[in-house]
Amino acid sequence: MYDLIIVGGGPAGLTAAVYALHKRLETLLISQDLGGKINYHLQLKGMEGHEIITGGDVVEKFKRQLEYLDFAHQLDRVTKVTARDRHLAVLTQSGRCYEARSVIIATGVTPQRLDVPGERCLLGRGLSYSAISHAQVFIEKEVALLGSSERALRGAAELAEIAKRVHLFLPERSEMDSPLGQKLRIHPQVKVYEDAEVCEIRGDQFVEGILVRYRGKMQEIPVDGLFIELGLVPNSQLAADLGITDSAGRIMVDAKCVTRCPGIFAAGDVTDTFIEQVLIAVGEGAKAALSASEYLL
Amino acid sequence: MYDLIIVGGGPAGLTAAVYALHKRLETLLISQDLGGKINYHLQLKGMEGHEIITGGDVVEKFKRQLEYLDFAHQLDRVTKVTARDRHLAVLTQSGRCYEARSVIIATGVTPQRLDVPGERCLLGRGLSYSAISHAQVFIEKEVALLGSSERALRGAAELAEIAKRVHLFLPERSEMDSPLGQKLRIHPQVKVYEDAEVCEIRGDQFVEGILVRYRGKMQEIPVDGLFIELGLVPNSQLAADLGITDSAGRIMVDAKCVTRCPGIFAAGDVTDTFIEQVLIAVGEGAKAALSASEYLL
Repeated sequence: MYDLIIVGGGPAGLTAAVYALHKRLETLLISQDLGGKINYHLQLKGMEGHEIITGGDVVEKFKRQLEYLDFAHQLDRVTKVTARDRHLAVLTQSGRCYEARSVIIATGVTPQRLDVPGERCLLGRGLSYSAISHAQVFIEKEVALLGSSERALRGAAELAEIAKRVHLFLPERSEMDSPLGQKLRIHPQVKVYEDAEVCEIRGDQFVEGILVRYRGKMQEIPVDGLFIELGLVPNSQLAADLGITDSAGRIMVDAKCVTRCPGIFAAGDVTDTFIEQVLIAVGEGAKAALSASEYLL
Repeated sequence: MYDLIIVGGGPAGLTAAVYALHKRLETLLISQDLGGKINYHLQLKGMEGHEIITGGDVVEKFKRQLEYLDFAHQLDRVTKVTARDRHLAVLTQSGRCYEARSVIIATGVTPQRLDVPGERCLLGRGLSYSAISHAQVFIEKEVALLGSSERALRGAAELAEIAKRVHLFLPERSEMDSPLGQKLRIHPQVKVYEDAEVCEIRGDQFVEGILVRYRGKMQEIPVDGLFIELGLVPNSQLAADLGITDSAGRIMVDAKCVTRCPGIFAAGDVTDTFIEQVLIAVGEGAKAALSASEYLL
C-alpha cells in the first residue's frame, strides 16, 4: 500500500513526485516515459538554442532526480483508477494492480493529429500543436495555423502581432463569427483560407512549406512553421468511472488541485484549469502533492 | 496607461512580469525590492549549500531579466489600488499615480514577529517563520516551534517525523484539542511547553539556543533552529476598498487567479490559495499573467 501513486511523468507528475518524496510519503510514479512535453522543444531552421521561457530546466532536474530513484517510478501505462471506500487501486496495461491511500492524476492531453505525410517527422521542427505555448519564436516569420476553435484563434491573434504573415486555415467556418474571428479576418498580417485542406507538410530537416488543396487547386505555400490546432483530448479515460470529469473529459479541480473524489487529486493539462505552460504545471504538481500530503495527515 | 501593472516583486510577481513582457504587454512591476522570499534561504550551522527544492533558480533568472529591463520596474511601495469603471489606478508612497488596464496583486504576507533579542540578526540562520517550507532541513536535529494555530501544529507534526526532538511552545492552549494536537501531545519526539514565554534567541552566527521563561523559571534550551509561527498577515491593505478580500484579509481568487473585480488578478501568498512554496507562487504568477493577457485581448 503506497501513500501516494502519481499517474503521469510530465512536468506536473514529476514535480508532484519530487515534492511527495521530499515530504517523505511512500510514493510511486507510473508513466510510460519521463519528461512529457519538455521532451518536445520547438525549433526552427536557423534558430539557435531554445525558447526563453519553458520551465524545462526545473523539470529536467526533477526528471533526473526521479530517474535515479528506481523504487519510486515504474514505466507502465495506467488503464484505470478505482475508488471503493477510500481504498484506491491503480491498474496498468501490464496487468499489475497497485494500492494507494491517495492518487494524483497528471496524464496531460493528446493533440488531435492531422494524419498527413510529414507530420510525424517534422514534429518539434517547425510543427507544433500549441500556438499559445510557442508563438513567440515566430517573430517576423511566415507561419500557418490550422484550426478554428477559440483556442486556435487566440493563438492566431498572438501570432498576428509578431509574425510577418499568418496563413489561417479553417476546417469549419463556425467560430470566425466571434469578435476575435472578425478581427482576424481584417488583420493585415492574416490571410484566411476557408474550406482549405492541408495535404502534406514539406521540409527536409525543418518545416519549409505546406501543400494545400484550396479552391480546387493544389498549391504549395512556403512557411517556417505550422500549428495544427484541431483540439486536445484530455487523457482522463482512466478516471472515467470516478465522476470527476466535465463534459469535455477534463478533470475538475479546485484551486488546490482537489477533485470531488476523496483521496484523488489532479494537476496539469488534464484538469479544467488547463493553461499549457510548463511552469504552471510545475506549480500545480507541487500543489497537488501538498494537498495529498495534507489529506494523508 | 499601462496594459498591466504588477504589484510585488517576489516569486509570483517576477514570474508574472516576465510572462507578461513575453506576451508583449506594456508592463510595469512596482515593488520595494526584487526577489521576495528567495532572498531568505534558511541555513543551519554546518549545513552546506541550499535546500534541495526551492524554485529559487527559476526566480533568480527572472529577477535578473527584470533588473536588466529598467523601463519595466519601479522601486516603490504601492499604497492603494482603485477601480472605477474598469479604469484602474495604482498609487504609491512616493506620491505617484500610475494607470493601467489590468493589475496583478502579488504582495505576499508579513509574518508576525516575536520582537525579542536575536530575532532580527538570526533570521535565515536557523530562524524562520515557515516550518512547512523549511522543516526538511532539520533531519535528526533539535528544533523549537512557537505557535498553536493549525498551520503551526502541521509544521510541528512534519518536524516530529524527522527531527531528533521538537520543543513545542504554546502561546495559547486552544487548538491542542484538535486530533492533530492530541497526536502531538503523546508523540515521543515532541515536548510540549504550555504557557511558556520565549524571551531571547541566542547564537553567534546561527541559532544555538533559546532563553525561555517556563513555570516561573528562566532556562536556556539548546536548539539548532526555531520556527516562529504566530501567524502571517496578508499584505492586502492596498486592496481594502475593492471588496476582493476574505475575513482574514486574503485576496480571493479562482483557479485562474481571477478576482471578483474586473481587471484585477492576484497570485502567490497574498491569495486564499496560499501554500507558501516558491514553485507554486511561480506557477500562479504565470497563470495570473496569462489570465490578464486573455482579459486584455
